[in-house]
Amino acid sequence: MFTQATPSISNSALALQARLSIRNGTWTGHTSGLAKGHVQGNVVILPQLLANDFHLFCQQNPKPCPLLAVSEPGQTLLPTLGADIDIRTDVPQYRVWQDGVLVAEPTDISGLWRDDLVTFVIGCSFSFEEALQETGLRIRHIDQGVNVPMYRTNVATQSVGAFSGPMVVTMRPFKAADAIKAVEITARFPNVHGSPVHIGDPALIGIADLTKPDYGDAVDVLPDEIPVFWACGVTPQAAITQARPEFCITHAPGAMLITDLLNHHLST
Amino acid sequence: MFTQATPSISNSALALQARLSIRNGTWTGHTSGLAKGHVQGNVVILPQLLANDFHLFCQQNPKPCPLLAVSEPGQTLLPTLGADIDIRTDVPQYRVWQDGVLVAEPTDISGLWRDDLVTFVIGCSFSFEEALQETGLRIRHIDQGVNVPMYRTNVATQSVGAFSGPMVVTMRPFKAADAIKAVEITARFPNVHGSPVHIGDPALIGIADLTKPDYGDAVDVLPDEIPVFWACGVTPQAAITQARPEFCITHAPGAMLITDLLNHHLST
Repeated sequence: MFTQATPSISNSALALQARLSIRNGTWTGHTSGLAKGHVQGNVVILPQLLANDFHLFCQQNPKPCPLLAVSEPGQTLLPTLGADIDIRTDVPQYRVWQDGVLVAEPTDISGLWRDDLVTFVIGCSFSFEEALQETGLRIRHIDQGVNVPMYRTNVATQSVGAFSGPMVVTMRPFKAADAIKAVEITARFPNVHGSPVHIGDPALIGIADLTKPDYGDAVDVLPDEIPVFWACGVTPQAAITQARPEFCITHAPGAMLITDLLNHHLST
Repeated sequence: MFTQATPSISNSALALQARLSIRNGTWTGHTSGLAKGHVQGNVVILPQLLANDFHLFCQQNPKPCPLLAVSEPGQTLLPTLGADIDIRTDVPQYRVWQDGVLVAEPTDISGLWRDDLVTFVIGCSFSFEEALQETGLRIRHIDQGVNVPMYRTNVATQSVGAFSGPMVVTMRPFKAADAIKAVEITARFPNVHGSPVHIGDPALIGIADLTKPDYGDAVDVLPDEIPVFWACGVTPQAAITQARPEFCITHAPGAMLITDLLNHHLST
């Protein structure tokens, strides 16, 4: 319901309205299409002891982990992303990890909060999808009404400390001319994964079967289409299952933090 | 020999030196690698009666026919491209066409000049090849020491008056990650064909066999590489064989007009 902008609702009011519905528990699902025009973010929350290594991991892997914001330890607000954001309540669904194992998927983490937790917000491909659609490209998973297909690849991230593991990618199929347009457009959005990391044969990056994504949903790839792969903000979750931090919280894939930033402000 | 810049030779002196060797008949071959850093152009010379339609044809087909300069009728100088350029002598090898049929390939057209001839200079992919190399990409046909492979496609140009016909493309093979870089880089050079027009399966644009180019030379395409296709300035020559103008002069493919403009000034 928050996807309907009305003349009386300003843009940031639209984001606030979405966050309020998430905060009060009315909305606990995927955020694709919510608060149209606004930047959404992947979330990783880690104890301070691991935060420095993870910060460096993001900087060493800017395509899967483009940083939008990093909090002070214990700080629950993210004022550069939105005046009222409270990271404990404003993500529709969280994932809680202990020793690298997923142990819970709550919709509120107020009861789990600790003074040593540092929040990282990482850009999300929803931002560039809007730019792709504005130039007339059709995005298959949106047309099919499903989550974007995501795959673990055999492309290794640059490891930092305990953080390592494979790059996770999203895939969108296009006809060749549209694939070229998609490269051109997403290259202008380095803060939300930027240009693709692979195009064409999935086997070359270790994906055996496009119909079996590791996260999200499979989509149709037509005979005259070419699969195009972008680095994905779920990559840190793969790194966390490797690093096995004693405690960690992330967003649930597809259920993002909605910010007051506007997508078109991210374009270079 | 003009490819060797020395501290005593300024950049435009390098272009002038190359042109002088072409003008006096010392150099009659391909211009790839000559006067490094300088823009080279495809050339089409037509009677005034057809020039207006051809001008519109270029404007309707900016990817294969990006216009760098158009002369006044009968004007042999092209001052916006270089103070001393004389279009009658400064192309290493010309092609003379009568009624759409190639009738001669002279190295000087002074004896054929007419007061009603209009010169069109069209951007050339040599300009973006330099930018590709500067980012570390290897260009196969340069590595193999041959002319770039060019193919007639089943992609129709926008026809204007008598001018129509298939788009001609150049092909460069790259690994996927480099193909993506190549799209990003060439997108910044709209005046020299810009981003590719196709990527992947050659059959989708009517190319039956990559090993049999219609112009230039075949190059190796390795199993983990993807062919990338750019619109080519030879497209007007295909249009001329269709339009069958009573008289027309072009450059010979690969033997371009060397200008004083610098490639990096073309980047947007």
